[in-house]
Amino acid sequence: MSTSSRKSAQRKRGYHHGNLRQALVDTALKLLEKREEGDLSLREISRKAGVSANAAYRHFADKESLMQALAAEGFRRLAADQAKAASAQTVPFERHRASGKVYVGFARSNPALFRLMFGRSATTPSGELRTAGELAFEALRASAANALGLKPDDERVAMAAIRSWSLVHGLSQLILAGHLDELGPDLDPMIDAVLR
Amino acid sequence: MSTSSRKSAQRKRGYHHGNLRQALVDTALKLLEKREEGDLSLREISRKAGVSANAAYRHFADKESLMQALAAEGFRRLAADQAKAASAQTVPFERHRASGKVYVGFARSNPALFRLMFGRSATTPSGELRTAGELAFEALRASAANALGLKPDDERVAMAAIRSWSLVHGLSQLILAGHLDELGPDLDPMIDAVLR
Repeated sequence: MSTSSRKSAQRKRGYHHGNLRQALVDTALKLLEKREEGDLSLREISRKAGVSANAAYRHFADKESLMQALAAEGFRRLAADQAKAASAQTVPFERHRASGKVYVGFARSNPALFRLMFGRSATTPSGELRTAGELAFEALRASAANALGLKPDDERVAMAAIRSWSLVHGLSQLILAGHLDELGPDLDPMIDAVLR
Repeated sequence: MSTSSRKSAQRKRGYHHGNLRQALVDTALKLLEKREEGDLSLREISRKAGVSANAAYRHFADKESLMQALAAEGFRRLAADQAKAASAQTVPFERHRASGKVYVGFARSNPALFRLMFGRSATTPSGELRTAGELAFEALRASAANALGLKPDDERVAMAAIRSWSLVHGLSQLILAGHLDELGPDLDPMIDAVLR
């Protein structure tokens, strides 16, 4: 890029506040606390973030690419929450279990984001989303390996990791869809018992 | 109902073939083999079933009530498939496992129907859907009780049933969403290993 065109690009970015991309992601995450993905538009998110739709389109080609950025942010937050909860435990199996409880808790606290993260087809993820998802699965595999006292590349670890993931994922989905509502408002004891 | 009004009602029903309700359900299930619930309309289903939309509305107040009938039919078919697979096994734990494998296989063979059965909020199911769902869960609980050698009303059985359900449900969802695609086209060995 020539000096003059770089200057022009800087001037263009200067029309908007510094980290516009992150502001759009944060605004969308805020909206997802009360609404579902299907009820959001890039136009509304831009407006709430205080920028023009045109400015938003410079960062996200379409709504789908913003949704993928949200999903990636969701995976990073989930992984961070899990790491934090696991670090508070010393017994490897308890670390693994704490991480699983955080997964279910994350789904319950962020239902729309959770559905967004997992509801879409994973066949054409962006690079960012692919990386975030892979890091999350690597952490799960390491946790399972630790819990079992096996090397991470042991085939049994891969199966145990998928088993753990399926268990917490299925439990989350059944709870979110209301299929366990009849157990009453306090589901924590059930979640504890199921993950024991 | 007076004799004359009953006769009038019979004449009205006579305008359409005998089991119109079931014909609408069957037509919609057929369409669900290739499309998602969101792409269906009561109008199109009626047309494909060879009846007027008005005739369809006599059986289903709206699309949602037809979708609930489809979900109920899905639960009944799933339960029948599970019972059949379980009956081919003699060891109680193998019966339970066979039933779980059928669950995952059902999801893979009928992805749109499976999503329809579980994707919607379960908070206001029709009586038919509630009954079908309850029967499916009762069968699961009985199977878990058998596998564990415990009485069906044992609290541990309820937790084991939710654990089994979560496991096969989560595995199904992760497969349908493409999250396990990297394992290659033949997922059967993985499914076997995870449910072992």
